[in-house]
Amino acid sequence: MATDPSVRDGNGGTGLVAGALAGDRRALARAISRVERDDETGRSLLALFYPRSGRAHRVGITGPPGAGKSSVIAHLVAAFRAEDRRVGVICVDPTSPFSGGATLGDRVRLMEFHADPNVFVRSMASRGHHGGLAATTAAVAHVLDAVGFDPILIETLGVGQDETEVAGLAHSVVVLQVPGLGDSVQTLKAGVLEIADVLVVNKADRPEAERLFRDLAAMLSLAERPGTNEWSVRLLRSSATTGTGIDQLVAAIHAHRQWLEETGAWHDRQRHLAASELSTLLRRSIEERFRAGGPADGWSSVVDEIASRRRSPGEAIQGLLAGLDERMDRGRP
Amino acid sequence: MATDPSVRDGNGGTGLVAGALAGDRRALARAISRVERDDETGRSLLALFYPRSGRAHRVGITGPPGAGKSSVIAHLVAAFRAEDRRVGVICVDPTSPFSGGATLGDRVRLMEFHADPNVFVRSMASRGHHGGLAATTAAVAHVLDAVGFDPILIETLGVGQDETEVAGLAHSVVVLQVPGLGDSVQTLKAGVLEIADVLVVNKADRPEAERLFRDLAAMLSLAERPGTNEWSVRLLRSSATTGTGIDQLVAAIHAHRQWLEETGAWHDRQRHLAASELSTLLRRSIEERFRAGGPADGWSSVVDEIASRRRSPGEAIQGLLAGLDERMDRGRP
Repeated sequence: MATDPSVRDGNGGTGLVAGALAGDRRALARAISRVERDDETGRSLLALFYPRSGRAHRVGITGPPGAGKSSVIAHLVAAFRAEDRRVGVICVDPTSPFSGGATLGDRVRLMEFHADPNVFVRSMASRGHHGGLAATTAAVAHVLDAVGFDPILIETLGVGQDETEVAGLAHSVVVLQVPGLGDSVQTLKAGVLEIADVLVVNKADRPEAERLFRDLAAMLSLAERPGTNEWSVRLLRSSATTGTGIDQLVAAIHAHRQWLEETGAWHDRQRHLAASELSTLLRRSIEERFRAGGPADGWSSVVDEIASRRRSPGEAIQGLLAGLDERMDRGRP
Repeated sequence: MATDPSVRDGNGGTGLVAGALAGDRRALARAISRVERDDETGRSLLALFYPRSGRAHRVGITGPPGAGKSSVIAHLVAAFRAEDRRVGVICVDPTSPFSGGATLGDRVRLMEFHADPNVFVRSMASRGHHGGLAATTAAVAHVLDAVGFDPILIETLGVGQDETEVAGLAHSVVVLQVPGLGDSVQTLKAGVLEIADVLVVNKADRPEAERLFRDLAAMLSLAERPGTNEWSVRLLRSSATTGTGIDQLVAAIHAHRQWLEETGAWHDRQRHLAASELSTLLRRSIEERFRAGGPADGWSSVVDEIASRRRSPGEAIQGLLAGLDERMDRGRP
């Protein structure tokens, strides 16, 4: 394939990468679109951005629909802007106002952001499925990271099969809960408490909020291990409509980053994010390989052996994994 | 590991495999439980069953909750028993009566089946997640297939992310639709029509049934390619409460199997099932590898390189896939 001109001069010319790195917003948006498309040009672009990434603090904001994630994010963006940070927002939640339908208040806030060159909002809610979405989210985060956005807020839907997927995408995870979405603590789905670094009872002015707060506090105290070097999950109240509690949330996010850096946990999380991304990409690639070419090309002799019962799927897998491990151990896959 | 006694004499002794092959129902149930557990013994057992499988007709029954899948399956089991076939049922739908809650009528039918040695019902709705479930379903189908159950009916939930997963598990796919679950044809989610070999409007005595039937017929006629060697999707009406239309459904399932065999499509489907299983197992294994050991073992040097930005995830993946392809092309992974 002939190299796209925008890539060719990406290391210093006027192409998309150079433009994006120089702060050209249109170049950034176009580069992200290419990266999202995940074609050859997109992958070449990503490979140019990737070495410059690795500094941004990725913050996952998750919670069920109606928890007020977008309103909280709007407040967070304003708060980080007041600290003169450049803020990226990636929205992976299809029910989010960022992805379409929005309240008037959210729309007004979003319009403000659109005019601010130091805020970049990207909604990818309608792009592809599961594994594909996680892979694309990571890729877009690398681009925003490379051009200097920090923090990067990632809004995901805290329900469904992959509610804990955000833990593979973010250094810090904020889980929003709201009273009245069911029987208090039961709304906290399995696995969500485990990934929370900060737990927020939003819409705290609702009548049942205090009971939810107490229940969550009780659950957290059960899980608490005093004396260890572990992070203690922060439990907060907020009201996104009035802005109450946002300062504490910003402080908790900062505190978590500081804890990550001071304890060396930042390094562990970087490795965890890298491992998650590798796993996601590998699984997606395998799925695509089988979907695109079908059994007819490449892998067909193995598929034939399995279909004709000369070899079991388990035996085939063992051999394949041994091969992967071998390549991995060599450190040069 | 010391070989489990039930495996050791599995090739002719009194162990689980031999017992199951000889028609011992308890041995079969225990063997399936071990296979489901997917530990070393389970995999050894599966490897003994697998070469004897490959004859059974796997029929997927899918549709939204409330479509009456379990009632239809109960009728199908009775119909196939009347033909003196041994019938296996694997239920992957967590909302199914087979998995728990059931109407009195379904319970009574299920109790009849329990007394019949030529019917074997296995519910695995609560076992593991997504990919894991598909892998386990295929494994259990191999066991039932090896011991002579044919057909094997697989009940899956026709909604959610993997609604088309059943196409990788069954030779023939029956999609149930019911009137009144929304705005008629819109209830037919994307991808479901594509996988249907037989399309059934169940609860056809409901007032809106005719409209749904007409809409589906119109959609099918648009997709029809006359003159080709393709299978024409059968569109049927049924009422599982009265048993109306079950004969036509049985006939359609037989006709589809006959078409598969006469056109050579059976062979293609076997390969498709083998490829799907290989893909599912490989993806699950990769996920487990990253989950279990974490980045610390084995793959850690690559993860380090990615985390430290010395290499991009995309580059690592390219190398890994090239390695997989190489092993596959050699035909001896």
